[in-house]
Amino acid sequence: MTENRHSGELIAKVKWDGAGLVPAIVQDAQSKEVLMMAYMNEESLRLSIESGVTWFWSRSRSELWNKGATSGNTQRIVSMAYDCDGDTLLVKVEQKGAACHTGRYSCFFNPIGVSGAAADASGAAPDRFGTLGRLEGVIAQRYAERPEGSYTTYLFEKGVDKILKKVGEEASEVIIAAKNKDNDELRSEASDLIFHLMVLLRERGLPLDDVIREIDGRHGKPTTNKMR
Amino acid sequence: MTENRHSGELIAKVKWDGAGLVPAIVQDAQSKEVLMMAYMNEESLRLSIESGVTWFWSRSRSELWNKGATSGNTQRIVSMAYDCDGDTLLVKVEQKGAACHTGRYSCFFNPIGVSGAAADASGAAPDRFGTLGRLEGVIAQRYAERPEGSYTTYLFEKGVDKILKKVGEEASEVIIAAKNKDNDELRSEASDLIFHLMVLLRERGLPLDDVIREIDGRHGKPTTNKMR
Repeated sequence: MTENRHSGELIAKVKWDGAGLVPAIVQDAQSKEVLMMAYMNEESLRLSIESGVTWFWSRSRSELWNKGATSGNTQRIVSMAYDCDGDTLLVKVEQKGAACHTGRYSCFFNPIGVSGAAADASGAAPDRFGTLGRLEGVIAQRYAERPEGSYTTYLFEKGVDKILKKVGEEASEVIIAAKNKDNDELRSEASDLIFHLMVLLRERGLPLDDVIREIDGRHGKPTTNKMR
Repeated sequence: MTENRHSGELIAKVKWDGAGLVPAIVQDAQSKEVLMMAYMNEESLRLSIESGVTWFWSRSRSELWNKGATSGNTQRIVSMAYDCDGDTLLVKVEQKGAACHTGRYSCFFNPIGVSGAAADASGAAPDRFGTLGRLEGVIAQRYAERPEGSYTTYLFEKGVDKILKKVGEEASEVIIAAKNKDNDELRSEASDLIFHLMVLLRERGLPLDDVIREIDGRHGKPTTNKMR
């Protein structure tokens, strides 16, 4: 009963379009890649709120649609928000398998060339750390799609023990490179260590964001009385 | 001329709605937060492609709208894509200032409580990787200033062998946490590993940028013939 009242209040804040629908952007809560966009009506929003998994209104089939009910590629809702004017929803999910009906991780795989911009769909961010974010997206894509011949696919297929062996191996190689005072070797081994750590985080379902927040909480403070 | 022909081909692939519009999701290319959703008509899509900054169609004012033209909060397009059925665009941008007309970073600041989910609005971490950059600055400051009582100072004073022992120790603890299927522990140990690795890079005078570039060169490519 509480939940019904609760969702009723929220549903009243949404501005539905002429067809009684609202667009819902679906984002991977872990990698933060945008996966798809679909539409909700009142009933599917209520079902989503109450069940904790995504329900949409299929405009082509004119029916309620529980995402993944037939494919198994379900979306557990991690958080949900509506925008400043209440006419769009943002749904952060834990995506099981691929989000797109084509079997791809994300529906947004068709690049559009833009003047003065990198013409790729993966989004080559010009900034230094955007690269890490993009890499996280590539790893998430490999995890969902398992393309053949990919080293990352190989790691996921082998499983967590293989990934952990690589973490241990790369950490040892970082130590040896540093002892050899060989910065070319160190750059190479440090990059391998970070890569395998990111693969591990994906395998364990732990967002890199959470790890970064933890480092910041521990070591990111400016010099204070209680210094780290 | 080439660009005009190019954009013409792309525009033909977009499925416009009854009003001649297509929804465009705007995402921060660096933090990957979804910032806003707006609509484009053919003319605004063509202008966006050709100018490299976002142009929309304002449904309320019925006019072309160059985002940030009056507020200064412009969006340089980093990459752009359309989805599997061509009826939604995803625009990754470099956002100057706030994206929302309310002055907020993202328009999606209204949380919706979902059964079994954390009820938080998005946009809580507008600068996920900026945190790493800031942390790198804090480590560099400690390296230069050696403030007393700081753990980072302690590591630098002890020297490279101490730092390497910690790298080995934290890597082992990551492995144990993963084997214990304990994500709280894993988050903590992964953050310690990354922190000590960053201290090592500073001690060895190796920019984190170089390491990130190396990972990207090896593993950041989209799926191709020669996959990683």
